[in-house]
Amino acid sequence: MTQLTIAAIQHKCFSTPQQTTNHLQKTIANSAKAGAKLIVLQELHNTPYFCQQETVDAFDLAESIPGPSTDFLSAMAKEHQCVIVGSLFEKRAVGLYHNTAVVLDCDGTLAGRYRKMHIPDDPGFYEKFYFTPGDVTEDEFNGFKPIQTRIGKIGVLVCWDQWFPEAARLMALAGADILVYPTAIGWDPQDSKEEKHRQLDAWTTIQRSHAIANSLPLVSCNRTGFEVDSQDIKQKSAPKNKHATGIQFWGNSFICGQQGEILTQSSVNSEEAIITKVDLKKTEETRRIWPYFRDRRVDAYQNLSKRFIDSASKKD
Amino acid sequence: MTQLTIAAIQHKCFSTPQQTTNHLQKTIANSAKAGAKLIVLQELHNTPYFCQQETVDAFDLAESIPGPSTDFLSAMAKEHQCVIVGSLFEKRAVGLYHNTAVVLDCDGTLAGRYRKMHIPDDPGFYEKFYFTPGDVTEDEFNGFKPIQTRIGKIGVLVCWDQWFPEAARLMALAGADILVYPTAIGWDPQDSKEEKHRQLDAWTTIQRSHAIANSLPLVSCNRTGFEVDSQDIKQKSAPKNKHATGIQFWGNSFICGQQGEILTQSSVNSEEAIITKVDLKKTEETRRIWPYFRDRRVDAYQNLSKRFIDSASKKD
Repeated sequence: MTQLTIAAIQHKCFSTPQQTTNHLQKTIANSAKAGAKLIVLQELHNTPYFCQQETVDAFDLAESIPGPSTDFLSAMAKEHQCVIVGSLFEKRAVGLYHNTAVVLDCDGTLAGRYRKMHIPDDPGFYEKFYFTPGDVTEDEFNGFKPIQTRIGKIGVLVCWDQWFPEAARLMALAGADILVYPTAIGWDPQDSKEEKHRQLDAWTTIQRSHAIANSLPLVSCNRTGFEVDSQDIKQKSAPKNKHATGIQFWGNSFICGQQGEILTQSSVNSEEAIITKVDLKKTEETRRIWPYFRDRRVDAYQNLSKRFIDSASKKD
Repeated sequence: MTQLTIAAIQHKCFSTPQQTTNHLQKTIANSAKAGAKLIVLQELHNTPYFCQQETVDAFDLAESIPGPSTDFLSAMAKEHQCVIVGSLFEKRAVGLYHNTAVVLDCDGTLAGRYRKMHIPDDPGFYEKFYFTPGDVTEDEFNGFKPIQTRIGKIGVLVCWDQWFPEAARLMALAGADILVYPTAIGWDPQDSKEEKHRQLDAWTTIQRSHAIANSLPLVSCNRTGFEVDSQDIKQKSAPKNKHATGIQFWGNSFICGQQGEILTQSSVNSEEAIITKVDLKKTEETRRIWPYFRDRRVDAYQNLSKRFIDSASKKD
């Protein structure tokens, strides 16, 4: 199969888990009916983006894998004969949690999981409190292993990973047929319009660049909607005219081809499944005429495993 | 100094070396007069893009460094008290040639050179015939060493390097304050309008992504104009209705900021010096709030020094 139809389901945070399930049930069915064989959900699609605060109670949202969410996604994948990429708050052991993407194969089996390797931490995105970074695994993949399914090898990475060209390259070197990013990114409402534009554009640009550098199609599925900072609600002493703070998730989920060309993209606020076809055969065609893999200077890349070349801070 | 004014001089290939010199003399003077402290020239700015054919006579175009071209650029840099980045066909020894960028400091000294590490080879761009790839040097930089000048550390890379996120990252890890790409890229006139658009857009996108991934300003200076494939002229037996083939260099030189935002860009055909200011201080501001350097998984990047993970070709 060289033509692959892909859907990315972008939605707001629902008030209850049941509403989320209902929405996904309906939207996955519709996407599959429209031909999708790969369906991608947004980061932590089951819950609010709880990382706006560091709250020990939020760990109650975590669940084991396999568990109820993979059971549900497995049933959906099997019923609709498609591959589904979900994104969960994984409870690996008592007091040990990960931000984990799961891939369900067309027959409903759990084809594999990927534990987010790069964990962000900045105001409103306190992920280092919740998620242990993915392990350097003992196999030869070091944590960057694409997941084999009936439709190909899925190079799943998660959100903050998208800013690291290293992650995309490692997935490509490990044989990924496509790059997939469930994500949850948005604006601080207090930023200027110009800054918001630069951030969104940078986010689209860097992911498109991974498609280009590796001649791979790419799917990025983001949240939409405003999620209020719960701490802000609790602060009753806050002045009455203070605006509620939180994150305006910026949507703009997209699917692009092997030259980074955008094939379909949702808007900021739409709650929708974008869907398009990609031609997997184009990867080989593109790599033949833009042969980056031929010319990588693997004899000169050792410093990529360094934090910094400290002597570089000195004047010559 | 945190505000740096930068110019990139985009031009067509001139018929004689003297015409090139005259043009550069005038345009460098004008750019410096407009405030530029860093002036970037296009790839192999002294000559036609001779790599459209593999011709032994073309090696006569090569020159030593230092040599007449660096003497000229040195005089220009000293006269106008600015840093100049040029790009030369370097004769290192009898029968040993490189595609080399040179950096002249404000006082006219040769601050350093960078020998292109990634060498392309595809129809019309037969560079592997002419250029030995830059050495893995014996210092800790492995060939990716930014060049110290009075205005900062210049991370010079050349053309094909621009498709490799590894190269930009290595320059950033080595302390570069700015990324600079002299380049010579264009369209095959036989490609469709859509394909041309995808190629140009991919080229802009991947370079902007290096600015983003490393929070560095970036200058890319490309050729413009059509250069006919000389072999095509020689083939007198070619059918009369055959279009002359060659490369339509696509211009579009640009300068972008630390979030990849384009500050100025030339058009396809214009022969001009684009000029703009960048704020070098924004690098630290950007890295504080988008701290990629904090979170790189240097414990898991070893495979970046592999050509491919061959077991990945097998089915699991």
